[in-house]
Amino acid sequence: MIIIGVDPGFANIGIGVLELERSVTRVVHHETFVTTTRDGEAEERLDAIAEHLLDVCEQFDPAAIGYENQAGFAVAAARGDEGGPGINAAARRLGEVTGIIRCVARCYSLPCYCIAPSSVKVAVLGKGGGRAPKERMKRAVREIFKVGRCSEHAADAIAIAVGTGVRHRRAMLTQSEHASLIH
Amino acid sequence: MIIIGVDPGFANIGIGVLELERSVTRVVHHETFVTTTRDGEAEERLDAIAEHLLDVCEQFDPAAIGYENQAGFAVAAARGDEGGPGINAAARRLGEVTGIIRCVARCYSLPCYCIAPSSVKVAVLGKGGGRAPKERMKRAVREIFKVGRCSEHAADAIAIAVGTGVRHRRAMLTQSEHASLIH
Repeated sequence: MIIIGVDPGFANIGIGVLELERSVTRVVHHETFVTTTRDGEAEERLDAIAEHLLDVCEQFDPAAIGYENQAGFAVAAARGDEGGPGINAAARRLGEVTGIIRCVARCYSLPCYCIAPSSVKVAVLGKGGGRAPKERMKRAVREIFKVGRCSEHAADAIAIAVGTGVRHRRAMLTQSEHASLIH
Repeated sequence: MIIIGVDPGFANIGIGVLELERSVTRVVHHETFVTTTRDGEAEERLDAIAEHLLDVCEQFDPAAIGYENQAGFAVAAARGDEGGPGINAAARRLGEVTGIIRCVARCYSLPCYCIAPSSVKVAVLGKGGGRAPKERMKRAVREIFKVGRCSEHAADAIAIAVGTGVRHRRAMLTQSEHASLIH
């Protein structure tokens, strides 16, 4: 089963593709997709993100896709990805990217999960890891999956894919329990 | 040539479908697509919007799609569509909807235009109409296209479709001029 995790961003989009088998989980692809002002207006950058995510889904044929819930708009605005009028613009751009992720999932009729950062950490570090610093989680990702050189955004995306896998398996289990109650 | 205009919103999405012929422009469809808290979590509402817009494109096979640039987040936040934590949440939700619109356009390889409110008004009211009150524009839409009973959001969407048609024709003209310069 293939699971795609996305770390949403307007300038840097982390993408992690996991293959989950019964006992083994491995990373089959990871990358940071980058858009800059040289790629054109904001609209063209969003279109490039949409095209790329559609291509990635086409290529890897996932069972589910997940992205991290980005409540921390202030952080993005402070980071200045936007170069623009601050927090609302940053909130809007991040929203546009998550809207694109959800719509890509609809195009391929895939379940799409919005995962809390704490759930991502727990999925990687285990119970009690929900409040661990993000750096510890990324270090764990690099060690577990032997992707030492992967970028920050890609490490995030792999972790999000792990969290998405946990959530998707639980959702499938719940569905089959419902089915067994009905039949 | 079919043009789809969308008035983006999280709770109320205006949709207007225009048919442009050489000398006649007519409205072939208009509606307000509504999502409420009864439709589920925010994610489910976004998915419903994406599914519906994909269906509308499937049905009407447009040449282009356009939406209004919504800089006025404060308005949306004040309107309280969100019922939530205010302006950034509203900006994010609106962003998610515009991200969905752009991605729907990518799915069907359609040109997608983000139109300034003043350009929409000029397209409907003519030169000098750019600062006219929105009410005047909607009244003009209802009179010109004989859609007296159409909702506020649908009237907006029809106007946005008119603006999109103007922009798309100009873009095609520029393209063909480029082509004639090359050949």
